[in-house]
Amino acid sequence: MAIALKEAEKALNEKEVPVGAVVVRKGELISKAHNTREKSKNALHHAEVLAINEACKKLGGWRLWECEMYITMEPCPMCAGAIVNSRIPKIYFGAYDDKYGACGSTVNLLNMENNFKVRYEGGFEKEKSLELFESFFKYLREKH
Amino acid sequence: MAIALKEAEKALNEKEVPVGAVVVRKGELISKAHNTREKSKNALHHAEVLAINEACKKLGGWRLWECEMYITMEPCPMCAGAIVNSRIPKIYFGAYDDKYGACGSTVNLLNMENNFKVRYEGGFEKEKSLELFESFFKYLREKH
Repeated sequence: MAIALKEAEKALNEKEVPVGAVVVRKGELISKAHNTREKSKNALHHAEVLAINEACKKLGGWRLWECEMYITMEPCPMCAGAIVNSRIPKIYFGAYDDKYGACGSTVNLLNMENNFKVRYEGGFEKEKSLELFESFFKYLREKH
Repeated sequence: MAIALKEAEKALNEKEVPVGAVVVRKGELISKAHNTREKSKNALHHAEVLAINEACKKLGGWRLWECEMYITMEPCPMCAGAIVNSRIPKIYFGAYDDKYGACGSTVNLLNMENNFKVRYEGGFEKEKSLELFESFFKYLREKH
């Protein structure tokens, strides 16, 4: 989660919504990424999608069965769906996201009736994650 | 939808789950894609994600506000989330997907309380879409 938080900090420094994500396999770091939606001008470039993309490339397969993921914020529907589709069996995330979170807050896509089930634990280092968000919102307020 | 169905046929010929997607802006074809998950060994490479990725690149921005999307099958959670995130205001899809469809069948991610709302119409040319699926399942049965 420390590495994911460092990624989120990078996003903040680039004036992006500060979210970081890391894919790990048996204790080995496979990929890490941060949200680059504005810079890359791409709606898909959330931290989780970028980290899963890199992990699939690196591991040479679309099933990330042996991996775990650390994310600084509760994933949105797209990212929760990407986690299910890539068969990551367990994720850990930071702060819950009441507005867009799709791992229990608004809907739970990790535990759908017919689909692959992802185990998850939320709330890890949530204070640090929320601090980064506070800094981001402060920047937004000052900008406008 | 005819172009999206041709894309789905390409997927079938490549022994992929036969789904095709097309992004259109004011009657102009912006991008088209088909599912390549097996060939590209990437869990993210559903038709919709590939078409949105290409459209963001082509149009130089992450907001596809003036676009519409045609998809041969009801999008899964990841793809429905990607459609919401890219701000596509209207989609048309073919067959409903009782098992994984996230536009009304299992959950409706296009109309979440706090998020961007996507208008949608399903059922277009669903017979043709389902025929492609039948052929795909026949191939799977014969393979095993």
